[in-house]
Parts: sequence; structure tokens; C-alpha cells
Amino acid sequence: MKQKSRKFVYKTSVSWIEERKGILCSSGKPTIEVSAPAAFKGQEGMWTPEELFVASVNTCIKLTFIHYAQRDKLEFLSYESEAEGTLESVEGRFMFSELKVRPKIKLSSSNQIEKAKELIQLSEKNCLITNSIKSKVEVIPEISAQS
Amino acid sequence: MKQKSRKFVYKTSVSWIEERKGILCSSGKPTIEVSAPAAFKGQEGMWTPEELFVASVNTCIKLTFIHYAQRDKLEFLSYESEAEGTLESVEGRFMFSELKVRPKIKLSSSNQIEKAKELIQLSEKNCLITNSIKSKVEVIPEISAQS
Repeated sequence: MKQKSRKFVYKTSVSWIEERKGILCSSGKPTIEVSAPAAFKGQEGMWTPEELFVASVNTCIKLTFIHYAQRDKLEFLSYESEAEGTLESVEGRFMFSELKVRPKIKLSSSNQIEKAKELIQLSEKNCLITNSIKSKVEVIPEISAQS
Repeated sequence: MKQKSRKFVYKTSVSWIEERKGILCSSGKPTIEVSAPAAFKGQEGMWTPEELFVASVNTCIKLTFIHYAQRDKLEFLSYESEAEGTLESVEGRFMFSELKVRPKIKLSSSNQIEKAKELIQLSEKNCLITNSIKSKVEVIPEISAQS
């Protein structure tokens, strides 16, 4: 069988500044100040590895949904999503045991509510970040329509 | 046996703006404009889920190293780390198959080079983000000393 051979490489760099603080860079993008969470001796007001991890899942499910919505001509008016990840000790090692993602999707027409449910489930299944992680990911959508 | 029961929860939210563009938020942190990679119809110049994922690993290994360095009184002058993640189809599904992380660590004294190697290996093993992902993570350190 012929295998797909497309590969994509994504790069970032981080430079330590002082204490837990660093600067995160990726070519052509704005830099981001990063630290540890305050509970782990970090500075306040900066992004942390834990939030970047949760953000990567949250944003990837959003983009996967947009991809399917375009493909299937599903019109939506808004998409807002809260995600939370739980870090805990599993068999003696700290890891993200689970993530809950709660997209609120507003459609222009109630005729497409079932279609939107189907596509958000498909997005949960085919998101390339959820494919890459061990954490249990649960997507809990709230879909409404303007008319 | 008594189990550790500490749990930590990390939250982010994302709001869709237009096309592939969104705004990523986490309470008390600067917002980040996000999109898809240009190869997947995204806008240029914005962070993507793929880079946030690679960044979470890169920054978490850095913080784990800093934690061990403080614990063991290892003095370092600088820590800069490039990381790259490879996205490809594995058994028919796109995922990050591997990440390579290349920390360059400069010490004040060459006496501590072996100690630094030991601690970066420990950081690779105990990083809570690498514990949470399926991708193979390889840490390739470059350790030097001022004297």
C-alpha cells in the first residue's frame, strides 16, 4: 500500500531570563513571556507550559471544526471554547490525566444543529493534538441557533 | 499506601474571530492571536496549535531543569533551547510522531558538566508534559562551561 509521506515540522525556541522566567519565540510570531505557575515558584501574569498544552488542544479542536464546517458548508456565527486540563499524579508521575473542552457554537439556523453536533464529534476524534496526547479528552459542546 | 491527591487545573479560552483566526486567553495573562499554519489555510504571523504544543514541551523541560538545578545547587549562566516537532500520518491519523529538544546550557564551572547532563536527563524523564504525550521525545543537550 502507498503510504502518505507528508511531514510538517514546527519549531519554537525558549531562552531563560531569570528565576522561572523565559521568552518563547517562533519565527515570524510575536514573542511570549513564559514562566511556571505561581504554585510552582513562577511569576504571575505569564503563560506557562501547562496553559500552552491546554491551549494547543483547545485551539486545534476549534480549527478542526472550522475545517469540517467549511467542507460541509455549515454556517456558524460564533465559536467560543473554554478548556481545562487536570494535572495530577498518575502511578507516581505528574501528568495531565484529562482535559475538558466546552465549545459554545452559535449557528444561523437551527436546521443545522444535528450537523454541528456531528462535526464537533468528528473534530474531537480527528484533532491532531488529541491524537498526540495520552490525556483523556472530553468535548462537551453547547450548540444554539439564532433562528 | 497513601496516595498523593494534589490536583491542579489549568484553563484557557479561545474565541473565533474570522477565517482561521482566533484570540487565545487565560486569566491574568496577555492574549495571543492564534491561527492555523499557512499550509493549512491559516494567516501568517500568528501562533498555531502545533507551535503551542511544541512550546509546551520545550518550556516544561526548561522549568524541570531549573527545578533540579536549584535543588542540587547547579549554577548555570544561560539556557537556550530549540525544539522541533514532526507532524505526520501514523496509521492513517495525523499526529506528532516525535519531538527533538536541543537545550544549550552554559555553566560557570566545567566541574559541573556531568551533573548538568544528569539533571537534563532527569528533566526529560520527569517533565509533566512529556509524561502526558504519545510523541517520542528526544532531548539532545549541548553543555559548555565558562571556565
